[in-house]
Amino acid sequence: MEKESFKKFGYQFIDWVADYLSELEKYPVCSQVKPGQIKNQLPKNPPKEGESMEEIFMDFQRIIIPGITHWQHPSWFAYFPANNSPASILAELLTAGMGSQCMIWKTSPAATELEEVVCEWLRQMIGLPEGMAGVIQDTASTATLVALLTAREKSTNFEANQKGLRMPLVVYASEEAHSSVEKGAKIAGFGKEFIHYIPTDENFALIPEKLKEAINEDKAKGLLPSCVVATVGTTSSTACDPLDPIGKICRRYGLWFHVDAAYAGTAAILPEKRWILKGVEHVDSFVFNPHKWMLTNFDCSAYFVKDPGVLTRTFEIHPEYLKTGVDAQVNNYRDWGIQLGRRFRALKLWFVIRSYGIEGLQAIIREHIRLAQMFKDWVKSHEYFELMAPVPLSVVCFRLNDGRGEEELNEINKEFHERINQTGKIFLTHTALKGKYVLRMVIGTRTTEERNVREAWGLILEKAKELIPSLKKRGEPK
Amino acid sequence: MEKESFKKFGYQFIDWVADYLSELEKYPVCSQVKPGQIKNQLPKNPPKEGESMEEIFMDFQRIIIPGITHWQHPSWFAYFPANNSPASILAELLTAGMGSQCMIWKTSPAATELEEVVCEWLRQMIGLPEGMAGVIQDTASTATLVALLTAREKSTNFEANQKGLRMPLVVYASEEAHSSVEKGAKIAGFGKEFIHYIPTDENFALIPEKLKEAINEDKAKGLLPSCVVATVGTTSSTACDPLDPIGKICRRYGLWFHVDAAYAGTAAILPEKRWILKGVEHVDSFVFNPHKWMLTNFDCSAYFVKDPGVLTRTFEIHPEYLKTGVDAQVNNYRDWGIQLGRRFRALKLWFVIRSYGIEGLQAIIREHIRLAQMFKDWVKSHEYFELMAPVPLSVVCFRLNDGRGEEELNEINKEFHERINQTGKIFLTHTALKGKYVLRMVIGTRTTEERNVREAWGLILEKAKELIPSLKKRGEPK
Repeated sequence: MEKESFKKFGYQFIDWVADYLSELEKYPVCSQVKPGQIKNQLPKNPPKEGESMEEIFMDFQRIIIPGITHWQHPSWFAYFPANNSPASILAELLTAGMGSQCMIWKTSPAATELEEVVCEWLRQMIGLPEGMAGVIQDTASTATLVALLTAREKSTNFEANQKGLRMPLVVYASEEAHSSVEKGAKIAGFGKEFIHYIPTDENFALIPEKLKEAINEDKAKGLLPSCVVATVGTTSSTACDPLDPIGKICRRYGLWFHVDAAYAGTAAILPEKRWILKGVEHVDSFVFNPHKWMLTNFDCSAYFVKDPGVLTRTFEIHPEYLKTGVDAQVNNYRDWGIQLGRRFRALKLWFVIRSYGIEGLQAIIREHIRLAQMFKDWVKSHEYFELMAPVPLSVVCFRLNDGRGEEELNEINKEFHERINQTGKIFLTHTALKGKYVLRMVIGTRTTEERNVREAWGLILEKAKELIPSLKKRGEPK
Repeated sequence: MEKESFKKFGYQFIDWVADYLSELEKYPVCSQVKPGQIKNQLPKNPPKEGESMEEIFMDFQRIIIPGITHWQHPSWFAYFPANNSPASILAELLTAGMGSQCMIWKTSPAATELEEVVCEWLRQMIGLPEGMAGVIQDTASTATLVALLTAREKSTNFEANQKGLRMPLVVYASEEAHSSVEKGAKIAGFGKEFIHYIPTDENFALIPEKLKEAINEDKAKGLLPSCVVATVGTTSSTACDPLDPIGKICRRYGLWFHVDAAYAGTAAILPEKRWILKGVEHVDSFVFNPHKWMLTNFDCSAYFVKDPGVLTRTFEIHPEYLKTGVDAQVNNYRDWGIQLGRRFRALKLWFVIRSYGIEGLQAIIREHIRLAQMFKDWVKSHEYFELMAPVPLSVVCFRLNDGRGEEELNEINKEFHERINQTGKIFLTHTALKGKYVLRMVIGTRTTEERNVREAWGLILEKAKELIPSLKKRGEPK
C-alpha cells in the first residue's frame, strides 16, 4: 500500500472510530448473531491475489460489525468493563505504527524505561508501598500465574525450576477467588487438589481465622503451605478480602502473599476508597488491570512485586543470542514474566494518565460508584427485589424475590435475566452466590451516564413485571 | 477528548505513522541512548490535572522516539524481524477503537469465528494437515508452554492438573532449541533437569538416532518420556530438524510431538520451501508467528493442534460467571490457552492476508530469501569471511576468519560486531554455534530492498578492513 493510500484509509478509519464511539447506542449491546453466522459469510480459502482496502473495509462493516458485542457501549453492564478511551486508542495507533518489540531494554530502551516510569506512577496513584517495582503483564490470569510460580520457587528454594515440583505445596484462596487461581495452580504444577479454598463471611470476604486453621491443618498433614491469593474486588460481588489480618498470617507462617485486585485496584486512586488496600504493606505481589477501569486498552495488567530479584530469578534465561552489553544496568522485562516477546504497552498508559490526570480519572471512577449506589438504593427500596451483596464499589448484585422457594427463585431469575438481555438494549451477566442465581449490574464503562442507568432500571422493572404480574401495580422508574 | 479533537489528532498521528514508515532511514536503526537517559527526562510523579494531547504528542516525539530501536527499519538485520504493514496497522486501529474483549464466543462472536477462519486459511497456506485446528496465541513462548502442558496432561492422563506433577516426565529438544523450551519446561513443572537436549549434526539439526537413544536411555532409568519439541528454523541459524524421522519416533514411543516454526513457518507458503515441513503429518501441535515474517503486527502467534479436545481439557475452567447458553456449540478460546482475556487479533491477520493475497506474501518472502542467498554468496566468495551454517531461508551466519586461533577469532568477531552496530546504520545480532561467536545477517523486514543489503555488505567490509589491515587490498562491495 502506498503512503497516500495508507493516509486516505487512515483518515477514513479514524472517522469510523470517532463515529463508532459517538454512535454506540444505535447498536444492540450484545451481538444478536447465531453460532456460525459470521463464519458462513467468509470464504473457506484465502485469496490468491491481494484485494483492495475498500473491499476489506466494506466486509468489515458488513460482516464483522454485526458479530461484535460492544464493550464500549454505555449500556454495557456485564462482566467487568474493558474500557478504551480516545487517548489510549491514539497511543495504540502509534504503537502499531512503530511495530516495536520490547522483549529487552536493548530492543526498545524507551519502552522499557517508560514502563518503569508509568508503573511507578501507578504505584503512587493507588498507594502501594514505596519500593515495589512494576511490570506490565497481558492479563491478571498471567500475573497470578507468575505470582504462583514465584511462590513455588521461593518455597522450594528454586529447586522446582531445576528438578520439577515434587513437594505438596498448598495455595490458599477464598471460595470466591477468580478461576485464574485454579488455572494458574494447575499450570504451575501445584495441582487442583492442593488449592485450599477458604470459606467467606456473609459479605463474601475470606475469613482470616479460617485461613489460619487451614494452614495449621495442612501442616499437620505434612503438606507445605506456600502461597495465599487474596482478592480485592471478587468477580462475583467485588467483595474485598481483609489484607491486614491475612498479611499478618502470611508473615507469621512465611507464605507468599499475592493480591488480585484486577477490577477494584483502580478504585484505590480515590482517597475515600483507599481502605480496600488496608494492609497492603504485607503483600509480596499485587496485580490490577488498568485495562478494566482505567481507560487503557486491553491488554494492560499492572503487576507489582516487593522483591524483583525473586521474580527474575524465577524466570530468567540467558541464551547467547539475547545477551547484550548493558544487561547488568537495565531491566530486561523478558525475565519478569512468561513471554519473551512483549508489546509496547506502556505508551497507552502514559497517554491515558497524562491526558486525564489523576483528578480526571478520579472523577470518572467516583461517578461510576455514585451511579452504582443509586442503583443499589433502587433495588433495596423495591419490595420484589433483593440486594444480594454489599456494594463497596460499582457492582450491584441483585435478584427478583417475591418470596417463593429458592429453587423456583433460581429458575425465575434465570428467565428474568434472559429476557433482559434479549432486548439487546442492555447487557448484564450473572453469577452464583452461595448457590443463588444472581444478576450483576456492573457500572464502569467510560461512556455510561446517569440516563443509561435510569433506562436500564426502567427496562429491568418492565421485564420483572412480565414475570411477576403483581408487580404491574407497583412503581415506575424512580 | 471531544470527537473533533480525536479526529484532529487521529489524522495527525496517521500522518506521523505514514511519514515514519517512509522516512525510517533517517533514524539510526538501534537507539543510541544510554541506560537511564529516557527515564531521567520523565517526571517522577503522575500529573494531577489532565494535559493537552499537543504536549503529550510533542513529548512522544522529543523524548520517546530517540529511545526507540526501529524494528521496521530497512536495515534491520537483527534477531528475527517483527514486521508490521500498512494493512495490519489499519486493522489494529479498528481493533483499538472497538475495544473488544474476546475471551469467549459470546463476548465477541465475530472475533471468535474470524479467528477460526483465518487460522484455517493459514493452515492451508503453509500446508498443515487437514483437520488441524488453530488458535492465535500471543507468542511462540506461550504456545510452546501450552504444548508442554498439554503433553504433561496427556502423559499423566490429566492427573497432573489434579494432583500436581509428581512423575519424572522428560522433554526432548535439540541443543539448538529456543530458550522458551527451557522456560516452558520450568513453568510447567517438568524441571530443567528433565529436559534432554539432543545433539545436532553439522547443519545444527537434531539427529533422530540420538533422540531414539536418549528415549531408550531415559526409559531404562525409569524416567517417562513425554514430549519432543522439534524446531523448524532455529533461532541461531534457522536449522530445520527433520520432522519425518522425529515424528515416527514420537509415534512409536507415544510421545507428544510439538513443532516450533516461529520464524520459518511463513516460508512454507512457498512451494519450493514446503520441504521444511516434510513429516508434519506426525505432529500433535505446531506454532509459527505471523508477527515475524508475515507482516502482521506483534502479537500474533498461530498455534495448531491435531486434537483440540486434549487442549481444552487441559485448560478448561467453568466458573458460573463465564457460562453462556451456547457453550456447547462454539469455540470458547479462553479454554485454548493460558489467559482468560484475549485481544481481537484475527482482524489484523485477515486484513493482511486479504490485502496482500497469497501471491503478494510469497513475492515478499521469496525476495528476502533471494537477498539472503546473494549475501551468502558474497560471504562464501570472500577469503576472510567464513559461512558458519547452511542458509536454507533468509538468515546468514558468518564471521571474520583470517586463520588465527579460535579464541582470538571469538574476540575479534565480538569487536567486529560491536563496530558494525556502533555505526547505527545497520543492526545485526550474534549467536554462538558450537562455541563460536557468530554474526547473524537476518533479511526479513518488509521494507528491506537489495540496495540496503548491498550497503550493509559495504559497511561490513569497511569494518572488517579496520580490523584486518590486509583486507584493505581486497575487493569492494559487489
